[in-house]
Amino acid sequence: MRRAGGETTSSVRKNLCTVGVDLGGTNLKLALIDAQGRIIDQMIEPTRGEEGAERVLARIATGVRRLAAAAPGRVVAVGVGVPALIDMEAGVVLDLPNLPGRWPRVPVTDIVARETGLPAFLINDVRAFTVAEHSLGAAQGTETAVCVAVGTGIGGGLIAHGRVVLGLGGSAGEVGHLILALDGPRCGCGNRGCAEVFASGPAIAAEAIRRVLQGNTTTLRDLADGDLAAITPALVAEAAAGGDPVAIEVLERAGTYLGLALAGVIATLAPEIVVLGGGVAQPGGFYWRAAEAAARANSHVTEIDRIVFAPPALGYDAGVIGAAWWAKLAIATGGERAVVGS
Amino acid sequence: MRRAGGETTSSVRKNLCTVGVDLGGTNLKLALIDAQGRIIDQMIEPTRGEEGAERVLARIATGVRRLAAAAPGRVVAVGVGVPALIDMEAGVVLDLPNLPGRWPRVPVTDIVARETGLPAFLINDVRAFTVAEHSLGAAQGTETAVCVAVGTGIGGGLIAHGRVVLGLGGSAGEVGHLILALDGPRCGCGNRGCAEVFASGPAIAAEAIRRVLQGNTTTLRDLADGDLAAITPALVAEAAAGGDPVAIEVLERAGTYLGLALAGVIATLAPEIVVLGGGVAQPGGFYWRAAEAAARANSHVTEIDRIVFAPPALGYDAGVIGAAWWAKLAIATGGERAVVGS
Repeated sequence: MRRAGGETTSSVRKNLCTVGVDLGGTNLKLALIDAQGRIIDQMIEPTRGEEGAERVLARIATGVRRLAAAAPGRVVAVGVGVPALIDMEAGVVLDLPNLPGRWPRVPVTDIVARETGLPAFLINDVRAFTVAEHSLGAAQGTETAVCVAVGTGIGGGLIAHGRVVLGLGGSAGEVGHLILALDGPRCGCGNRGCAEVFASGPAIAAEAIRRVLQGNTTTLRDLADGDLAAITPALVAEAAAGGDPVAIEVLERAGTYLGLALAGVIATLAPEIVVLGGGVAQPGGFYWRAAEAAARANSHVTEIDRIVFAPPALGYDAGVIGAAWWAKLAIATGGERAVVGS
Repeated sequence: MRRAGGETTSSVRKNLCTVGVDLGGTNLKLALIDAQGRIIDQMIEPTRGEEGAERVLARIATGVRRLAAAAPGRVVAVGVGVPALIDMEAGVVLDLPNLPGRWPRVPVTDIVARETGLPAFLINDVRAFTVAEHSLGAAQGTETAVCVAVGTGIGGGLIAHGRVVLGLGGSAGEVGHLILALDGPRCGCGNRGCAEVFASGPAIAAEAIRRVLQGNTTTLRDLADGDLAAITPALVAEAAAGGDPVAIEVLERAGTYLGLALAGVIATLAPEIVVLGGGVAQPGGFYWRAAEAAARANSHVTEIDRIVFAPPALGYDAGVIGAAWWAKLAIATGGERAVVGS
């Protein structure tokens, strides 16, 4: 190994990298991240969850080795972000609802570490998004913050005392399960009336479909070519952008529900910033604006005017960057996986 | 000043004390607290809020001086806990709803410091309760915790990373304002359907009065000697303890609502412990048990079996001890009032 004469230990350390993995229900993303959080190299492929945990993890390990080969001797750890209930301390998935088999008690970090020779760390995907947005994105420098991602589900993460809050088992931040209506529709979690049943992507699609089935005058039917399955949140957003009043109403209603949940989180945490993102919450869109407006209108016990609402700064890369950054933080604190913070 | 030969600076410092003030709508409590959190001396008197902020603060200053005289040269600071929206950094009350005049922009710490010659620090009373229960009480040693006090209002405080979370302006912890029913009754805060309108002391009294007015068979009418104003949460608890099914139902209903709000806080923070106290939430009572049961039954995204529910360990002294302890912490961190933690 060559080392330039004037190079200090510190500057050598700055060249160290980590690999982040973002395991989604559809796509598997991996990225090599440098010490400044920049993406050096990345790859994306279909998750192919039907192959089972063992094969998917083998492909993850292969991808990590390939990316690590691009920075020989400089990759120090792997962070794996999963949309799952996990045991962070043990590095084990408990329940991964979006993949076949749901991966009960799959020891992800043990397998990835064995197959790559690198220390591996597990983190929930939305907590990874929160770590990224706090360390490198929209919430940078804040002491207290909330990051929320709206997609098929609604998840989030908290920052307090300038570090991500993990809570028991790393499950802090599940703000989609604040109960908004005692006798509301049944949520996937088992409760009735969680924010998620009113404000998630599926809730938007279902409400739009209901409007079409009711015979409301809307462009949605034509946009979907009469196929109800084609009525996605993205299609509703497209119709709304074209001025369709039904689509606008559907998005604003869902966004308002999210805003009421956000008002609860704001009363609880009094954050400096609310970072709102995810595929469904497009910055500047009807949903996003309705959510901010409802959160502000329903916050009376916090100095709401001082709270900033912002879209994520890292876009779709936040998950994979956050997973890599988490591994870096874990290594920096001696590998105490459950207690480190961003 | 005499100093024993073998005495170190550290053991001298251990003898230092602080004074805590708990300014309630009815009573004013002050206590001299030593470095171990023990009450050395205390006093209690009616608040007499009708005298106005200036006179009340003058009496507080007199009380502080009297208590400080009992430990000459050893009292280093005063902490004032108030049931108010405050500007912690400035040490100013913004709104104190339970006292005449509501104390808008009253500079409490400036006045108390000027009149006592001691550094003074301001904290919300429920955050003081949280500091006390975390530093010296039921939540001692935890990394992540929630403390909730139920009385006329419902307030609380959060612990994350082993320190109290203040949030913007010190207003984190207002868990009584999670919205549980979109079209619920109007709350004092301005929202509809906050947990407070269903689960606070006034909510319990009002629901019990409604049952009496409706002509339900209940011992409450006799216990109150036909005087509706005598139907307090304490009277309802007395009737329930005597087996009155209407009183039991009223308490269990209110406790269940609180439990639904707690489920939201648990999903958000995933705490190790929920400390539940305040005049209305008597440990082991119908309300307390219903709250715990509903919180557990409605928590599906956290490992709820690992979460402990406990009553406060410091009882009615938690507020005054917490205010004193807060002053000690503030001094220990150089007086940076807004950023220190328990």
